[in-house]
Amino acid sequence: MKRVVGSPGTWSGMALRLSQCVFAAASVFSLVSGFGYSNYGAFFYLILALILQLMWSSRLAYKDIFALRNKKDLHTRDNLLFIVTVDWVVAIFMFSGSCASASLTILFLWDVNLCNAYSRLACRQFALSVVQAFITWLLQAASSFSGFWLLISFF
Amino acid sequence: MKRVVGSPGTWSGMALRLSQCVFAAASVFSLVSGFGYSNYGAFFYLILALILQLMWSSRLAYKDIFALRNKKDLHTRDNLLFIVTVDWVVAIFMFSGSCASASLTILFLWDVNLCNAYSRLACRQFALSVVQAFITWLLQAASSFSGFWLLISFF
Repeated sequence: MKRVVGSPGTWSGMALRLSQCVFAAASVFSLVSGFGYSNYGAFFYLILALILQLMWSSRLAYKDIFALRNKKDLHTRDNLLFIVTVDWVVAIFMFSGSCASASLTILFLWDVNLCNAYSRLACRQFALSVVQAFITWLLQAASSFSGFWLLISFF
Repeated sequence: MKRVVGSPGTWSGMALRLSQCVFAAASVFSLVSGFGYSNYGAFFYLILALILQLMWSSRLAYKDIFALRNKKDLHTRDNLLFIVTVDWVVAIFMFSGSCASASLTILFLWDVNLCNAYSRLACRQFALSVVQAFITWLLQAASSFSGFWLLISFF
């Protein structure tokens, strides 16, 4: 079994998946606990993307832990192809959700100055959530690339 | 020289680049001709991304035409590596700009219903511009992938 940093079934891969879970959960929590998120489509979309991310990452973290404990090889070609495909789809969802929410947060903070005018709106929490979502996306991109790198070596 | 559809120095590649130019220019025009775009950061960012796209695509379209007329081979490894890297960066810029603008347009159209309340705001043109920007991004993604596919075969 090839050892590519961050690929499925390695310690670094498991660490990546677990940190994705942590940041995605933190981002959802920051968003949901803020007043006024539910009125805006982009934040709703981000939550959907984050829940998708959370489900996928926790599933793979579980698989990684299982493979590490039982010394199982996850690097079969079909398995890897499936993981990399879903990884890319999830990464694209996460990135679009983060960008959409970031643009809304920037609108509220600077463009129309809604945060000063309407102080109940939880702008700081929106901003925190967007930053956490971007970190989640970066970690997800790292996983996607390392899986993709491994996949190329099969062809 | 390998013939990969859409790669630099082929007819399909040139067609892709030219249509990227057309859609990017159309998107800029739709956005700029609409009243009220300049107040919002996301639209400004989209325009920057579109101008970047326009400069890059027209440069490569020119190179493609030159290579096709003079039967020059653009598929050297270093040249391809440079093109693919910039292609990916431009594609990521375009996608983030499109998502950011789409989220703002959706906010205006549906979430806060600003388009009905304030009819001077050119919401239809914003929506048209966003659709054109997404088409530009899809064409750019096609170019990036075909270049990447070719690049892999060098390693």
